Amino acid sequence: MELDLAIRGGVVVTASDTVRCDVGIKDGRIAVLGERLKATREIDASGLLVMPGGIDSHVHIAQPSGPGVEMADDFASATASAAAGGNTMVLPFALQARGTSLRACVEDYRRKAENECYIDTAFHLIVSDPTPEVLGQELPALLKDGYTSFKVFMTYDDLVLNDRQLLDVFDVARREGALVMVHAEGYDAIRYMTERLEREGKTAPYYHAVSRPEIVEREATHRAISHAELVDVPMMIVHVSGREAMEQIRWAQSRGLKVYAETCPQYITLTAEDLQGPDMDMSGAKYVCSPPPRDTASQDAIWDGLRTGVFQTFSSDHCPFRYDSPAGKLNEKGRSSFRWVPNGIPGVETRLPILFSEGVAKGRISLNRFVELTSTNHAKLYGLYPRKGSIGIGFDADIVLWDPNRKETIRQEILHHGADYTPWEGFEVTGWPVMTLLRGEIVAENGRIVGDKGQGQILARGFSAYAPHPLI
Amino acid sequence: MELDLAIRGGVVVTASDTVRCDVGIKDGRIAVLGERLKATREIDASGLLVMPGGIDSHVHIAQPSGPGVEMADDFASATASAAAGGNTMVLPFALQARGTSLRACVEDYRRKAENECYIDTAFHLIVSDPTPEVLGQELPALLKDGYTSFKVFMTYDDLVLNDRQLLDVFDVARREGALVMVHAEGYDAIRYMTERLEREGKTAPYYHAVSRPEIVEREATHRAISHAELVDVPMMIVHVSGREAMEQIRWAQSRGLKVYAETCPQYITLTAEDLQGPDMDMSGAKYVCSPPPRDTASQDAIWDGLRTGVFQTFSSDHCPFRYDSPAGKLNEKGRSSFRWVPNGIPGVETRLPILFSEGVAKGRISLNRFVELTSTNHAKLYGLYPRKGSIGIGFDADIVLWDPNRKETIRQEILHHGADYTPWEGFEVTGWPVMTLLRGEIVAENGRIVGDKGQGQILARGFSAYAPHPLI
Amino acid sequence: MELDLAIRGGVVVTASDTVRCDVGIKDGRIAVLGERLKATREIDASGLLVMPGGIDSHVHIAQPSGPGVEMADDFASATASAAAGGNTMVLPFALQARGTSLRACVEDYRRKAENECYIDTAFHLIVSDPTPEVLGQELPALLKDGYTSFKVFMTYDDLVLNDRQLLDVFDVARREGALVMVHAEGYDAIRYMTERLEREGKTAPYYHAVSRPEIVEREATHRAISHAELVDVPMMIVHVSGREAMEQIRWAQSRGLKVYAETCPQYITLTAEDLQGPDMDMSGAKYVCSPPPRDTASQDAIWDGLRTGVFQTFSSDHCPFRYDSPAGKLNEKGRSSFRWVPNGIPGVETRLPILFSEGVAKGRISLNRFVELTSTNHAKLYGLYPRKGSIGIGFDADIVLWDPNRKETIRQEILHHGADYTPWEGFEVTGWPVMTLLRGEIVAENGRIVGDKGQGQILARGFSAYAPHPLI
Amino acid sequence: MELDLAIRGGVVVTASDTVRCDVGIKDGRIAVLGERLKATREIDASGLLVMPGGIDSHVHIAQPSGPGVEMADDFASATASAAAGGNTMVLPFALQARGTSLRACVEDYRRKAENECYIDTAFHLIVSDPTPEVLGQELPALLKDGYTSFKVFMTYDDLVLNDRQLLDVFDVARREGALVMVHAEGYDAIRYMTERLEREGKTAPYYHAVSRPEIVEREATHRAISHAELVDVPMMIVHVSGREAMEQIRWAQSRGLKVYAETCPQYITLTAEDLQGPDMDMSGAKYVCSPPPRDTASQDAIWDGLRTGVFQTFSSDHCPFRYDSPAGKLNEKGRSSFRWVPNGIPGVETRLPILFSEGVAKGRISLNRFVELTSTNHAKLYGLYPRKGSIGIGFDADIVLWDPNRKETIRQEILHHGADYTPWEGFEVTGWPVMTLLRGEIVAENGRIVGDKGQGQILARGFSAYAPHPLI
Repeated sequence: MELDLAIRGGVVVTASDTVRCDVGIKDGRIAVLGERLKATREIDASGLLVMPGGIDSHVHIAQPSGPGVEMADDFASATASAAAGGNTMVLPFALQARGTSLRACVEDYRRKAENECYIDTAFHLIVSDPTPEVLGQELPALLKDGYTSFKVFMTYDDLVLNDRQLLDVFDVARREGALVMVHAEGYDAIRYMTERLEREGKTAPYYHAVSRPEIVEREATHRAISHAELVDVPMMIVHVSGREAMEQIRWAQSRGLKVYAETCPQYITLTAEDLQGPDMDMSGAKYVCSPPPRDTASQDAIWDGLRTGVFQTFSSDHCPFRYDSPAGKLNEKGRSSFRWVPNGIPGVETRLPILFSEGVAKGRISLNRFVELTSTNHAKLYGLYPRKGSIGIGFDADIVLWDPNRKETIRQEILHHGADYTPWEGFEVTGWPVMTLLRGEIVAENGRIVGDKGQGQILARGFSAYAPHPLI
Repeated sequence: MELDLAIRGGVVVTASDTVRCDVGIKDGRIAVLGERLKATREIDASGLLVMPGGIDSHVHIAQPSGPGVEMADDFASATASAAAGGNTMVLPFALQARGTSLRACVEDYRRKAENECYIDTAFHLIVSDPTPEVLGQELPALLKDGYTSFKVFMTYDDLVLNDRQLLDVFDVARREGALVMVHAEGYDAIRYMTERLEREGKTAPYYHAVSRPEIVEREATHRAISHAELVDVPMMIVHVSGREAMEQIRWAQSRGLKVYAETCPQYITLTAEDLQGPDMDMSGAKYVCSPPPRDTASQDAIWDGLRTGVFQTFSSDHCPFRYDSPAGKLNEKGRSSFRWVPNGIPGVETRLPILFSEGVAKGRISLNRFVELTSTNHAKLYGLYPRKGSIGIGFDADIVLWDPNRKETIRQEILHHGADYTPWEGFEVTGWPVMTLLRGEIVAENGRIVGDKGQGQILARGFSAYAPHPLI
Repeated sequence: MELDLAIRGGVVVTASDTVRCDVGIKDGRIAVLGERLKATREIDASGLLVMPGGIDSHVHIAQPSGPGVEMADDFASATASAAAGGNTMVLPFALQARGTSLRACVEDYRRKAENECYIDTAFHLIVSDPTPEVLGQELPALLKDGYTSFKVFMTYDDLVLNDRQLLDVFDVARREGALVMVHAEGYDAIRYMTERLEREGKTAPYYHAVSRPEIVEREATHRAISHAELVDVPMMIVHVSGREAMEQIRWAQSRGLKVYAETCPQYITLTAEDLQGPDMDMSGAKYVCSPPPRDTASQDAIWDGLRTGVFQTFSSDHCPFRYDSPAGKLNEKGRSSFRWVPNGIPGVETRLPILFSEGVAKGRISLNRFVELTSTNHAKLYGLYPRKGSIGIGFDADIVLWDPNRKETIRQEILHHGADYTPWEGFEVTGWPVMTLLRGEIVAENGRIVGDKGQGQILARGFSAYAPHPLI
Repeated sequence: MELDLAIRGGVVVTASDTVRCDVGIKDGRIAVLGERLKATREIDASGLLVMPGGIDSHVHIAQPSGPGVEMADDFASATASAAAGGNTMVLPFALQARGTSLRACVEDYRRKAENECYIDTAFHLIVSDPTPEVLGQELPALLKDGYTSFKVFMTYDDLVLNDRQLLDVFDVARREGALVMVHAEGYDAIRYMTERLEREGKTAPYYHAVSRPEIVEREATHRAISHAELVDVPMMIVHVSGREAMEQIRWAQSRGLKVYAETCPQYITLTAEDLQGPDMDMSGAKYVCSPPPRDTASQDAIWDGLRTGVFQTFSSDHCPFRYDSPAGKLNEKGRSSFRWVPNGIPGVETRLPILFSEGVAKGRISLNRFVELTSTNHAKLYGLYPRKGSIGIGFDADIVLWDPNRKETIRQEILHHGADYTPWEGFEVTGWPVMTLLRGEIVAENGRIVGDKGQGQILARGFSAYAPHPLI
């Protein structure tokens, strides 16, 4: 067999193993693992880690975000940014606007993505209007078409489902085998706090964090767990921010419930103090996301959860807005109160370096756990396995070459996203992606995008690997 | 490269991945993973799982067991039995008799093992007499020679260490980088209960279980954890039997302590009732081991622990005695009181089928978790990785071919150990090892031993993979 | 001083003390405690306990209960029944119908109670429609008039408040110093389960218990606790039925939150199996109440909570309906589905004997804890202390003489309530009230009502004793 | 009846009630509670609280404390100090020296106490040498004579019992109905830490705290709980210092075990930093006691335990040594290492003001809980009830009059103990004892001792009130 490409001399890392060997690629797939492989083209990976490309299962791209506000990334810029950061796949959301057909929304998003992506994508659905039509016909049909996960919100004016709607969606998920993702923060409690703060004149971006304290996340997390237990359906709690919610999840897992959990870079590196800016000023808006970052004690708790297996995935929750823009963080209403500051921060490009540096380089997690948290478990949980998520025979040759010793300082000027800032400006890391390959083709190299728009495919997904055997 | 052997058409399973591919072997090592491999010799693995050979890191072979009592296995029979059960390595113990040099004991065990083993072995040390000489010279020297783990006992007349001795041993382990294994049951509490039961005339084998209830294991577990926390040293709690001890371990892990844990087949399949025999008779002696099996609620708890990651390893604690023999369970004193019934049951051959059947076939754990629990984590924790414990380039070609659908009934007559019974007589399983290869050579095939005595090597080990990065 | 009455020779029991002495009464109040007291009238209490009369802070009397359904008790029969059972005060509810003024509702209930009561009463408010008018004006005004506690519901079509309404009510409670009582079961989850069960044709009374499992109570309890924590207001969770909700409360208390809790006789004596009747027939309707009784494991948990102080009060949740009546349990719709069976059971007369017998006589709680749970803490928590709730100088002479050794069998024919059955028919108890005195006048004696209608007063209450110092 | 004394116009406080009334005393006992009582002698208690005199169930008096070291108090000074601090009874220890008869030790202590005490005393036993003679004969005989509680130590060279001895003592306690008190710190762990610190040259008094961290107390607490659970005997854990041990106790109590607990003023007001002195100098020795004070987080935890009922008693653990004396803290060996600094601090006189001020005046606990923690529960747990521990008819007239508003600053010069310092020098309190009466006779008034030596009696005690009914 004549190989198209051999990656030579690196250390291959999977979610369980660390092995020095070459990787042989043919027709975009990994064809052989061995020693001293020969191929038409060879890449010298000496001194580098050869890992499955990052899969970021939680990104927002080109989503409508309220009147006059625009997300900073379209599919081209988001996927370019992801590729530069070592990723070979992202899973954005197709959001149902209330009163509209879910199918129509999905088609709309697909159109925006087609021929625009540098790496592969696949859509989760967001269900904001679970009508009988949606629950009874659209969701089952979309599941058959490969949209096998959907997200529900317990907060946000335009998205929040009440408990009965949550239960009905969970019921469909159980019947059809879908994986439900839950944004767990309590709508009414946030509104109560927001109005109280506004009455008191506390409108600076910092009060965004005060308006949604850990209690509010913990309560919603407990509620979602209880609903899932009642319906007997697996569930993923996304973007867990702190100790209190995490302890609910650990408690659920220890009682045998199939509750999965995700956390993000902001919850191990940022705190609510970042929202204060230098002087309780508008610059805190750069850090406004939901749930908000907490404190260092919660950061420690999140690390415990990453280490002991409470968390299965580590995603970016990339949700980029420009800061200095009337269509971004500093929109007119946003200047008047934290309530109108668009929620979300960019992060798809910095996710892997931050976890590698803070986790692997600082000795908190193993290399294998890094791969599991950033790639393998995403593939398994979201129905992409065994096509994606590992370095193994037959897998797509989606690979990142990683220099574990390279030191970099994160700066806006080296990033490829559409935002005009990064929350991690000046953050120093050890470990950096030096090459990203999609199906054996180089997409990004040393911070330059060398692939083509449209190289990425929009994939249909299978069912989550939690059935019939548990994932982990 | 001309391969010596190709295993064709199977499904390769590692601790994280499940991939259909061929395995190419050269000079006893795995040389290539790919499709349609050619080799001098080929094995058709269609319909079979190709997994790293089982590593059983907790077996007792040819240990002195009190006056007149003999273990039922020597190194030949034990390793033959292990090989027939799908294992390619066992880790028995070299036990220091009090008043003797540890080094001399080790040499003695090595002599008994040399040229006798069908599969690879490596010794843990048992420290029963931590003199300054042992702590200051012998242990450090033996560690350098590859004896990188040692076990201490919190019970048994001839083995028990007091708390100060435990702390001193932990201190050496921390300084030298060894992994301490702890048998956690409280000596004084067991003696107190034993004497009370004997005074009440309760001497049948069943009272063995009553004499060492979960409280006693939980207390010792908490004590060991506290000592390890004080000294700041990683630790492995072996053969955890029930909910109470397990909850202590989960609590320790959730607080960030490096506490590892092992459980065994007896704790997911047997209960204390088995010790009652048909009529509170001596046949209950067949199930006498320490800690004793508990109840079905504890079995459920152990499964929770296996699933959520409280346990890193699943071992047999193989400790075989003949039942119907004056040198075994029915020795003269053993007939007079449970206190004199030798503690231990045979299990090295049945460990893998029991966990596969009860765990994987019944949907409680994934295939990958099976491999992790029975092979990979043993290799990582005990310093054998990356030579042992996975299917990867450069690893020893220690492989078991497994038929996931084959149904068998466990019976004494099909086993190869030296005991005259199995505690699982009549136990039905789904999944069975059909071929075991050591360094690419077939050792066992379909229940027949086809390898040679002495084929197995005695290995020196490196340091546990918990340092510098956490294992998991 | 010439005493009107001396109770001689008994053993006086308070929430902390047990003392042999006489009780001297003058002008309806306790004037002296001493030995060998003389008085115009003397009662021989030799061999009897002299305890503060029971205060039942959770009873429903003459509440509207849906079209065609009538509660079985008016104020005369309910208070007669209470008196016969050893009580000297009850706290029923004045329920706001949606769309109506709370003040008007209260006046309506007062009219029904006036000149009808054999013992004292005071109303809690039920807020079902927290309009700005209610929150801003009516509640503060009613609090000033002595209605210092109000209850909110997290379920029931006509009563349920959403989370925002709960938070707003909690906010008023914090500002005004009121004590909020919470019925914690999740509305949407119950509806979801109810509809699912009905679709499956499971409509027998037993399915009432299935439709509101412990998960549903636990979730609502956690939610209420979180709201109270967010607002920083004390709260009473009423009628806690099982282990899961109780563990949430214990967790909250251990974190320093001012969360109080109540349980009831049904949760230590009945189980969900009682709702099955002899043959899954309609007779199970006799046990339909909310939350439903659970299982014996939960009964054990409730006892733990009573013993260790998780619970402050033990009430009846008396909510009587006739069984064999078209206006009761067997109303036409009730026969068609459990959903329409009126929720509630009679119990004001049997509360004290059940707790005394199961608790004190069986050695689970002390005499003092009995008094604390049935009288003193009710008075302290609901602003009646130091007028009610103990045997002390200046307290109202509200006293029950109790024979601790008298054995009785609870039967419908010896009770005084308006219901046509008792859930405890045939239940044998040790300990029985032999005389009830209100302000020094005998109301009930040996099962006969000897007092007069109108003897009981409707009292205004002060603020809960939790402020400024904690209750316990 | 002609009263000898009437205490007029105060507010009588018991463990459950707060009532304005007069207290009439005859023949040293409380004869009547009422209004406007007349008597030969009257005391105006207007504006004062009338509470049962403090009972301090944990004091050390005239105990041998090692070669050359002397306790600072004999029975005269200790009981005078206690009286001035509002106490009417203390329970010191009669310590068995190893190799001696327990009975002889007791007689020796009695001799030292006789005719020396200003207030009542009763001895606990300390068992340091549980020989068959002691377990089989002496303890049962001494119990019959009213020594119904005994203490065991899990640390200290001359006192430590091993686990088997603990179990044997627990066994006697169960059989005979005694209450075991446990000093829970692990001997071997402390020795290990002490030697390590000394090797490192860390010998200043501060390292006393480092040598016995919370882990060590937690482990011993868990061990004692497990032993008590195994034997099925009630147990009191004395002087609990921090969160970790307390959480073990709460866990035990929530599982239904009869585990009682005590804490002390040092654990709510001092921290390990106090042992550092101004400059890591010897003055830190003034705060050396065991267990050592912890940190403010543990103080918060102890308050939670006091509030929620984890703790039943609040004692001083008065164990006084002079600071500036060769027979005290600064003995020659004590200057060389923390290991030789006598363990213990004076506190019998300041216990009540500190708890009143920090607890009641600051709103953390109620008045009633104060009485329960400082008097009533001591009497109930240690077999003095109903003679001691409350204000009730027939009780000894042991009373403290307390000015809840008086502000004082604790200073050595106003105290009556034999020590030459107080750890609370300069500590400001609100609330102060103004008169202490023993059996109706004034012992102390406004800081002056006005009673007579020998006025206090040495009492035999009954069995703990936990049997047959639980205490609480």
